[in-house]
Amino acid sequence: MQDQARESRQFLHRYTPPPIDGSFRGKHIVTVEQFSRSDLRTLFDVVFDFRSRVTNHDRSLLDICGSHVMASLFYEASTRTDMSFQAAMRRLGGRVVSASNGVQFSSVYKGEDLADSVRAAACYADVIVLRHPEVGSSYQAAYYLDQLQARVTRQPVVISGGDGVGEHPSQALLDLFTLVDLKGGAAGQTITMVGDLRNGRTVHSLAKLIGKLETRNTTLCFVSPAALPMPENIISYLKTHHINVHETGDLQEVLGQSDVIYWTRVQEERFENRAEYEAIRNDFIMTPEVMRDAKPDCILMHPLPRKNEMGTPEQRDALDLDPRAAYFRQMENGMFVRMALLASVLGAV
Amino acid sequence: MQDQARESRQFLHRYTPPPIDGSFRGKHIVTVEQFSRSDLRTLFDVVFDFRSRVTNHDRSLLDICGSHVMASLFYEASTRTDMSFQAAMRRLGGRVVSASNGVQFSSVYKGEDLADSVRAAACYADVIVLRHPEVGSSYQAAYYLDQLQARVTRQPVVISGGDGVGEHPSQALLDLFTLVDLKGGAAGQTITMVGDLRNGRTVHSLAKLIGKLETRNTTLCFVSPAALPMPENIISYLKTHHINVHETGDLQEVLGQSDVIYWTRVQEERFENRAEYEAIRNDFIMTPEVMRDAKPDCILMHPLPRKNEMGTPEQRDALDLDPRAAYFRQMENGMFVRMALLASVLGAV
Amino acid sequence: MQDQARESRQFLHRYTPPPIDGSFRGKHIVTVEQFSRSDLRTLFDVVFDFRSRVTNHDRSLLDICGSHVMASLFYEASTRTDMSFQAAMRRLGGRVVSASNGVQFSSVYKGEDLADSVRAAACYADVIVLRHPEVGSSYQAAYYLDQLQARVTRQPVVISGGDGVGEHPSQALLDLFTLVDLKGGAAGQTITMVGDLRNGRTVHSLAKLIGKLETRNTTLCFVSPAALPMPENIISYLKTHHINVHETGDLQEVLGQSDVIYWTRVQEERFENRAEYEAIRNDFIMTPEVMRDAKPDCILMHPLPRKNEMGTPEQRDALDLDPRAAYFRQMENGMFVRMALLASVLGAV
Repeated sequence: MQDQARESRQFLHRYTPPPIDGSFRGKHIVTVEQFSRSDLRTLFDVVFDFRSRVTNHDRSLLDICGSHVMASLFYEASTRTDMSFQAAMRRLGGRVVSASNGVQFSSVYKGEDLADSVRAAACYADVIVLRHPEVGSSYQAAYYLDQLQARVTRQPVVISGGDGVGEHPSQALLDLFTLVDLKGGAAGQTITMVGDLRNGRTVHSLAKLIGKLETRNTTLCFVSPAALPMPENIISYLKTHHINVHETGDLQEVLGQSDVIYWTRVQEERFENRAEYEAIRNDFIMTPEVMRDAKPDCILMHPLPRKNEMGTPEQRDALDLDPRAAYFRQMENGMFVRMALLASVLGAV
Repeated sequence: MQDQARESRQFLHRYTPPPIDGSFRGKHIVTVEQFSRSDLRTLFDVVFDFRSRVTNHDRSLLDICGSHVMASLFYEASTRTDMSFQAAMRRLGGRVVSASNGVQFSSVYKGEDLADSVRAAACYADVIVLRHPEVGSSYQAAYYLDQLQARVTRQPVVISGGDGVGEHPSQALLDLFTLVDLKGGAAGQTITMVGDLRNGRTVHSLAKLIGKLETRNTTLCFVSPAALPMPENIISYLKTHHINVHETGDLQEVLGQSDVIYWTRVQEERFENRAEYEAIRNDFIMTPEVMRDAKPDCILMHPLPRKNEMGTPEQRDALDLDPRAAYFRQMENGMFVRMALLASVLGAV
Repeated sequence: MQDQARESRQFLHRYTPPPIDGSFRGKHIVTVEQFSRSDLRTLFDVVFDFRSRVTNHDRSLLDICGSHVMASLFYEASTRTDMSFQAAMRRLGGRVVSASNGVQFSSVYKGEDLADSVRAAACYADVIVLRHPEVGSSYQAAYYLDQLQARVTRQPVVISGGDGVGEHPSQALLDLFTLVDLKGGAAGQTITMVGDLRNGRTVHSLAKLIGKLETRNTTLCFVSPAALPMPENIISYLKTHHINVHETGDLQEVLGQSDVIYWTRVQEERFENRAEYEAIRNDFIMTPEVMRDAKPDCILMHPLPRKNEMGTPEQRDALDLDPRAAYFRQMENGMFVRMALLASVLGAV
């Protein structure tokens, strides 16, 4: 008999993520849909507080999760998400466990059910950060953790660290927080997202979160190759939430009005043939020359890692010196946002 | 000249593990033979205490191993043992080091002597948890650590995390503790072990520990394919210790009387030909239907990970909801038992 | 367009390491050239202090780096350096993050710029320990971290954990510290380095550091195959610093006068043909027989790991029992030296 695997995607229907609704404690975090405008404000207040305390080396932070253990369960590489969750937990005094040899070398990789592996980690840890290539994997984890709670002495929760092409809620939250941090929020802003908007997980989630804010006079500009537009359901979601939407294939059309430029990669593999890719490629490379036409007080964001969508190493070096380059700040904010998430679901703040 | 490796198995003779005999401090833990009935009681008292303090988020736990470092040296995958030792050490306030890239990618894997690698870890850590595929490897580690103590400023100890087909003492201890935890001990109990009892390391060690308890009216039932029986030396050990022993190939014969059912896997690879395996296979699959004939107050244990010896994913899901399923509790107990072991050998409790 | 990588070696020119000059705080550590005689004395005072406090389980150590996070970024295997930096940080109460799956499985390995990966780690950590096969890699890291400091809220530093065939400053410092620890320093000593002195990174750095001490009556003896001598620039550096230098191919010539014997490996791959290697091979194997002719109060050092340059496993076992064998003490000292380095650059001591 062949071992049978559960299909993660079915758990998108079998598990209903609870809305935060003012209370983070004990809630699994699997989608940005769980957050209301008010929940976001609550969370971001904690982020600002934690950031200033880290900067001041305030040691009282270490008491916040001092008796908690986080398990890091990464079924695919994502050094940034992994390291920032680890650092977040540790800056709160919490402990972190992970497979010493990496999961790719362990039983969890050799055909064990995800459901069993997650429950194993939950037998030791209070919170699990799960990164897994299957859409719905964090829903599956949440489903089985709820069942486990009757069997063990503690009540472990899961936070999604990215679900394949599905969701990556902590990335979306750190993107939104960076908007709040550097531009005061989305009200009155023109926010331009550039790249493969059809497949880009980060731009989908960020767009949704911006919709949730229901701010006034917010415009989202979507710049993508014709074949890779923002999905229709997100466009209509935004319109329902009173966000102005503008779609184009030409960055120049919107660059000079953009307060925020969110840059992402266009992958050659997405195109049917190479010629099609070659035809548009240069329109989707950010360089210091492109930034010359951008507003002097705009910010340039990127989820990182980046490759040649920011040009040559020399061009990247020049871009990095531009005070408008916000992607390192954005990455650092990721740690502070994850600190707030961890402390909140553990009921420690 | 070819590099020569020491053979781990010879250290089963060159190193004599010290009996605990009331004092855990500074003792290497390599076999269940080191524990007397009274040592087990001492250890389990600590386990119960630690468990209730973890459940109550008692922060005084963090002081117990606050100045100690554990090295995790895993030469083969065992995510559960690895993570639970890590979590155990961290819940006591201790620190954990391991090779960032996993040992499979490190010098210890590239032909360095086990003896040297263990001593390297001992130069940095106070306790080493060693998982290694060779029988006798933890004896080898203990032997060289004793020699090292004259050379360095501290006195590091090793705890076996599993020795190939040899011993896995912390697993046996957590199995026994779960018996004590959920059934009050072995006195008056009928304990049924099912599966490949010839090669099953966990059932050998657990059977020996039950023998040590010398409890009254304890019956061990061994259910296995005819070709994979419990070894003769363990049977006779048990009889010397006044344990009733019953061997059979038919679970139905003993299921209705069993207070504890310890389920393990029968691997196809153990059989000479596939037909032989196919003939018995279905008798060694635990399902909700099988549990219908079990006692209402029995417990079902399993060392995990499990594969199809507990049927399809759907059957496993149904089993997991049965209140008699004790394997998650057993797994969680593993962390508490390892906390007690670590604190005890470090002289911290 | 092919992704372009920066060449690490060019950063040997683009980045100038700051001299310590009495103040470690915030300084990147990439070469032994940064240390003056007085800086070494300051550092070693801290090492002695930390060692005695670790030995006494002094818990006040845990406050020293209690609010700091170290990232371990190892692009090649070096279990000893990795584990000892981890243990060092943790014994100071600091936290450590690294890629759960090892960098070889992560984005940093899949072609991301070293410059970007280091800055990612710096967004989460306060100090980065970098091991990378390219000469100049830690200079590159230092260069980009300096640029990052304007972008993030903290000021992360890098410590080199080894730069390919370039430098490995913490190894040189622990070697020198062991001389100070066990022989009181280099004054009046005859220090003999044996092996492949042309390619041996550790012997180059240690020789330079000894030169910096400018002690009286220090003699360095270099014993190597004729084809693998100590480089001319180091010889002349030593002579400028009033160190007596003696070069030979015959250990017996200097063995009886040596106070310190620093043994390293001669690799077959360094020779043009096998016959050439076979001719000298046995002159470069340390055994208990060789030690019979050494001074009764000398010390035998080795950077470890070792292979057959210390003979068979049985010969190594016998050597290890010789009280003059100092390599385990040397390895343990590594942790104490790294504790002092970490606390110093973090401004925590």
